[in-house]
Amino acid sequence: MDNKLIYLDNAATSFPKPQKVIDWMVETYTRLGVSPGRGSYDLAMEAAELVWQTRQKLARFFGAPDPDRVIFTANATDALNLAIQGLVAPGDHVVATRLEHNSVLRPLFHLAQQSGIKYDLVGFNEYGHIEPGEVAKTIRPNTRLVICSHASNVLGTVQPVSDIARVCAERGVPLLIDTAQSAGHVPVDMGKWNVSAVAFTGHKALLGPSGIGGLVLSPQLEIKSTRFGGTGIDSRNLMHTQTFPDRLEAGTLNLLGVFGLSAGLDYLVNESLERGHQKEMAMIKRLYAGLSSISRVVIHSPMPAEHDVPVLTCTVRGLAAEDVGAILDGDYGIAVRTGLHCAPLVHADLGTDTNGAVRFSPGRFNTNEDIDRALEAMEAIGKMHPNLI
Amino acid sequence: MDNKLIYLDNAATSFPKPQKVIDWMVETYTRLGVSPGRGSYDLAMEAAELVWQTRQKLARFFGAPDPDRVIFTANATDALNLAIQGLVAPGDHVVATRLEHNSVLRPLFHLAQQSGIKYDLVGFNEYGHIEPGEVAKTIRPNTRLVICSHASNVLGTVQPVSDIARVCAERGVPLLIDTAQSAGHVPVDMGKWNVSAVAFTGHKALLGPSGIGGLVLSPQLEIKSTRFGGTGIDSRNLMHTQTFPDRLEAGTLNLLGVFGLSAGLDYLVNESLERGHQKEMAMIKRLYAGLSSISRVVIHSPMPAEHDVPVLTCTVRGLAAEDVGAILDGDYGIAVRTGLHCAPLVHADLGTDTNGAVRFSPGRFNTNEDIDRALEAMEAIGKMHPNLI
Repeated sequence: MDNKLIYLDNAATSFPKPQKVIDWMVETYTRLGVSPGRGSYDLAMEAAELVWQTRQKLARFFGAPDPDRVIFTANATDALNLAIQGLVAPGDHVVATRLEHNSVLRPLFHLAQQSGIKYDLVGFNEYGHIEPGEVAKTIRPNTRLVICSHASNVLGTVQPVSDIARVCAERGVPLLIDTAQSAGHVPVDMGKWNVSAVAFTGHKALLGPSGIGGLVLSPQLEIKSTRFGGTGIDSRNLMHTQTFPDRLEAGTLNLLGVFGLSAGLDYLVNESLERGHQKEMAMIKRLYAGLSSISRVVIHSPMPAEHDVPVLTCTVRGLAAEDVGAILDGDYGIAVRTGLHCAPLVHADLGTDTNGAVRFSPGRFNTNEDIDRALEAMEAIGKMHPNLI
Repeated sequence: MDNKLIYLDNAATSFPKPQKVIDWMVETYTRLGVSPGRGSYDLAMEAAELVWQTRQKLARFFGAPDPDRVIFTANATDALNLAIQGLVAPGDHVVATRLEHNSVLRPLFHLAQQSGIKYDLVGFNEYGHIEPGEVAKTIRPNTRLVICSHASNVLGTVQPVSDIARVCAERGVPLLIDTAQSAGHVPVDMGKWNVSAVAFTGHKALLGPSGIGGLVLSPQLEIKSTRFGGTGIDSRNLMHTQTFPDRLEAGTLNLLGVFGLSAGLDYLVNESLERGHQKEMAMIKRLYAGLSSISRVVIHSPMPAEHDVPVLTCTVRGLAAEDVGAILDGDYGIAVRTGLHCAPLVHADLGTDTNGAVRFSPGRFNTNEDIDRALEAMEAIGKMHPNLI
């Protein structure tokens, strides 16, 4: 056994990044790392043009018509906060799901405590899916927003977003989807599906660096600014600029991150998102089949389907998830993510909220050999004395 | 004349970055770019340790006792929004100054419109200084916060922060300073000065990349969360984590940016902040002296003092600032920043809010030759026919 780390925590962040992405990001930032759209000199204009091209690429990637409505944020959580706080007002009702990450649950909880909003959470079925009919039943006359994870970061299941969007559209309620775990794995098409807003992060399957994410909005969506500052335009006005994208952006842009994200998107287009996803899903199925044959292992993710994302969560009977993770790391050089994955209600519903679970998430740079190494390790762990919990 | 760009817009962002900073950032992120503090495997622990060390370095750099109260943000505007929105409640009064950037003016304007706060802005004197006595007179019984730019991004003047802090402390009002234009040029010492909160950005004189900044808080300061999400700890709790730094951070950290900022701080310590600043101030004085002898040039910055920052703003009689900037760029390859610099009230008070002004801001990598080239260019521009405005 060599000492190479087997990284199976790509749902936390993709690692490693493609060398091409790092190289292009650094070269471009080294050449053009000035203040885009603020200075009028050539370099600043060239930087601004690349930022604009990245908005265009993202609009195309997410099936959105207007690149001006591609907003850069620090990460998906930041984008979800901007969206939720910008769309919901006191007295409103919100529908979300029990699949959501704390990046949705905690803003809603706060608004309920502080601003008197109300929210209901739709549960997932045995296949790990949110049923559109359940969403429909939960929408009230004062529901202002529906929020749904596109893919569960615990189960790996992809939700029937186009059907959920249809029931929302029929009721005139905008749908915000959290694509932190889906963008870069499976297609996202706001226009075709009639989705009003997409929150994304750059550092997961989009293969960019940490520190950059965004929010993509449909042209119809009304949203208010919740952060305020310099936009480089209309500087005399003490009211924050209301045109897009400035309405939701303030201060100096993360140019390095934008360049990295741009390179990540190019990489995905050139190397084929679909091919990468097929490879990932073949690995997750191999993992699922192998783990299924280890008697002490309980798999909590449904059997992976073609259109799901490469995430598999399991536990080992008699062992705390944290200990399984520590053994995988310490004895086998395998990195996974244990605990509650910031999605406490999924774990509550799975019955894994006391001891957590072990999440495997291969990425496009893993191999079948990595999966086999993980299976060997889990087999050995499955034979350990069950006295740790 | 060669084609090398003469970059005199370091107050917008420092450019170029030291090669050492870029190299260390990229190497470290390539090696350790996982999810710090979320996974329990060795790499994640090592990444988390580097993040912690960066908080320690920043606490030391800003004279703050508690590294846990160093909060990472996307930029200074982001930090100012977190601070202002987290410290001020409806009914409160805030004192700020007419030197402030829109990153302070616009949040205050919004809160005044939406939440019924009130604020007053203290003017600057002929030396470009905020007088502590004026701040004292403006504080009311319900003043909850005083905000002051440490250095003006238009005038280059550094404010008597320790004196302002004293009058605030005497009245029990916390002082928040915006160090976007000072940190990395002149020392900032929260502890010694009794400053309650410091907002900073990483991509200016701290020599880090764009996308990273922060807020440093004194241990006594009470502040509420205004963004909510995953913190990697206490995940069962739907209330956002209230311990620091998580109280004000949510979602995946900008690890690449943290590494870059860490390298920038190391560079400043190793290469001496003081020596760089002395060099910068020698250049700005050379520029001031040279521009003073060009009859059409009106300098709006006070004569630079030892402890100021390297920013000089001027206009050319009869020419629009934008045109001066375009000529400097197009004909001389000199990058400056024209317009209102997102600080509209300074320009209103200078009488330059209609046509804007031209800002020169050399950095530690400029040379006297760059300044001389800029002076030659300004001399030639000063002889142009004054028909553009």
